[in-house]
Amino acid sequence: MIVDCHGHYTTAPEGLWAWRKNQLSSLKNSFAKPDISDQQIRDSLEGAQLKLQRERGTDLTFFSPRAGSMEHHVGDVGVSEAWSRECNDLVHRVCSLYPANFAAVCQLPQSPGVPPANCIPELERCVNQLGFVGCNLNPDPSGGWWKEPPLTDRWWYPLYEKLVELDVPAMVHVSSSCNPAFHFTGAHYINADTTAFMQLIQGDLFKDFPTLRFVIPHGGGAVPYHWGRYRGLAQDMNKPLLKDHLLKNVYFDTCVYHQPGIDLLLKVIPAENILFAAEVVGAVRGIDPETGRYFDDTRRYIDGAAGLSAADREKIYEGNVRKVYPRAAAALRRAEGRRA
Amino acid sequence: MIVDCHGHYTTAPEGLWAWRKNQLSSLKNSFAKPDISDQQIRDSLEGAQLKLQRERGTDLTFFSPRAGSMEHHVGDVGVSEAWSRECNDLVHRVCSLYPANFAAVCQLPQSPGVPPANCIPELERCVNQLGFVGCNLNPDPSGGWWKEPPLTDRWWYPLYEKLVELDVPAMVHVSSSCNPAFHFTGAHYINADTTAFMQLIQGDLFKDFPTLRFVIPHGGGAVPYHWGRYRGLAQDMNKPLLKDHLLKNVYFDTCVYHQPGIDLLLKVIPAENILFAAEVVGAVRGIDPETGRYFDDTRRYIDGAAGLSAADREKIYEGNVRKVYPRAAAALRRAEGRRA
Repeated sequence: MIVDCHGHYTTAPEGLWAWRKNQLSSLKNSFAKPDISDQQIRDSLEGAQLKLQRERGTDLTFFSPRAGSMEHHVGDVGVSEAWSRECNDLVHRVCSLYPANFAAVCQLPQSPGVPPANCIPELERCVNQLGFVGCNLNPDPSGGWWKEPPLTDRWWYPLYEKLVELDVPAMVHVSSSCNPAFHFTGAHYINADTTAFMQLIQGDLFKDFPTLRFVIPHGGGAVPYHWGRYRGLAQDMNKPLLKDHLLKNVYFDTCVYHQPGIDLLLKVIPAENILFAAEVVGAVRGIDPETGRYFDDTRRYIDGAAGLSAADREKIYEGNVRKVYPRAAAALRRAEGRRA
Repeated sequence: MIVDCHGHYTTAPEGLWAWRKNQLSSLKNSFAKPDISDQQIRDSLEGAQLKLQRERGTDLTFFSPRAGSMEHHVGDVGVSEAWSRECNDLVHRVCSLYPANFAAVCQLPQSPGVPPANCIPELERCVNQLGFVGCNLNPDPSGGWWKEPPLTDRWWYPLYEKLVELDVPAMVHVSSSCNPAFHFTGAHYINADTTAFMQLIQGDLFKDFPTLRFVIPHGGGAVPYHWGRYRGLAQDMNKPLLKDHLLKNVYFDTCVYHQPGIDLLLKVIPAENILFAAEVVGAVRGIDPETGRYFDDTRRYIDGAAGLSAADREKIYEGNVRKVYPRAAAALRRAEGRRA
């Protein structure tokens, strides 16, 4: 089994964007559901994410609303709540249509300056009523201005308490950038991953939440490349070794789009802390002229990694995800059934 | 010859910080020079940067004021100008006392929202009168709030014209962070490196300035680890191959504090674009328990890199720096004379 823990509905039908446009040009926050048929959903996936699953031989994708469109910075908290519900409902429809191909991960209705506790009702609705297996948590709902307290601040604690209670992890994932300094997928995403990890080094969050689990996407930003720097900074701050300080709670995905990057990730981060992911259809869509393969076909790099044992490969493809996302067990059984 | 292109005067005598404290607690901007004797300067270096040069067998360090103390966000442009002059004058004294060990790189008197052209007089003074060989350019003088236009914006062009005229490169280096989201050496520095490179991908700066040269420190932030992502993003944007788009003008230093990181850097970035550096005494001061060596003893990693040819090692240690910093030729001759 190969589980991709990081996919977004980047190909959502036009009806969703029409709904959003209507929402943002209106003063009310109550609308009919987006005008999207099941066939439109199928069409949006069959030639894209599902085609790539088949071609690349992956089995199950954890699927969340398009990250760049979470846009927590747009409008007020009511706008964010209504938009999050629609995006999550649409992802739920995807997973209901293809229950053996996708498991749902929700967008949270964050809003700049609004205590994250406001996200609890939507999180509970998604997990308890709709069977979602995780959520995306935005450390910067301002969209590139970074005005929220660090992830270790008590500001976030009520949401963490709920994550622990529900036993779902959060992927730490920003949305689009409205700061012209930061290209969104080329700078803001990677910076956010790096920033989040450093915040976690500085704090002692997992003393308070020993079972809370974060996935840091895009291979952990700059962290594995600078693993010596982070080990050294933690040591200078009199923190425990990173494996004890953070690696019981923090995981990295494999959205690193070339073989040398994946090789480094596998070399410095324990296999127990790596989850397979490709983020397709996502940030980088072309074919690497150096390999003739899609940049984002990360399975090639995992399969091509010299010296990765079969046992470690299995952890990365399936074993770890079962531990980090226990609520995905049913979807994993369905995916297994499809394969059988 | 081994040239370290990235060192800061982190151990400057107390007289400098007293001067700064006086400056910031006063309403005037004219003060006596800092009360610092030559012996105090010697003492501040002999047990630190000079000791490490000797122990690690490096020959010449490009030396600039402490990056975290540039603090372009503190006070107004007059405060920044006065402080930059004092910091640069002190570095000049260092290089005058040890002309065969250090070559000077200047801090620029940037200030948030102030056109960078204001830096030209201090840059000219440092280069033309004091023999400085380069400068540090802060892409975010706000100190973590990122309010300046991207480095490709015409906002910066008058300064670039002067850099080209003087034939000195700029190291793209932020200062401290006053944004609590960003630890300064663990997040802000690395993010800034990544951000700057992505800005350069998005633009076409080197069409306008074909001889302008930037050094991106800390191993290029996240860039080499995500080299596939950056190649792919550039391709999706219909930019030329990165080697043609940027690598005639952009260089990475080797401030990456573990062997696997350096190995990755050497694997994906051409040797012609890598400059040796350690940034000592700097961000990470401890001994790596996994190796028993200082994290920041980057010479160990370069010497320990399997498959690096002698010719490429020479480029990284010396050859490239001669091309990127042509004004360092005299200091290189002095360092050679000391060795002889």
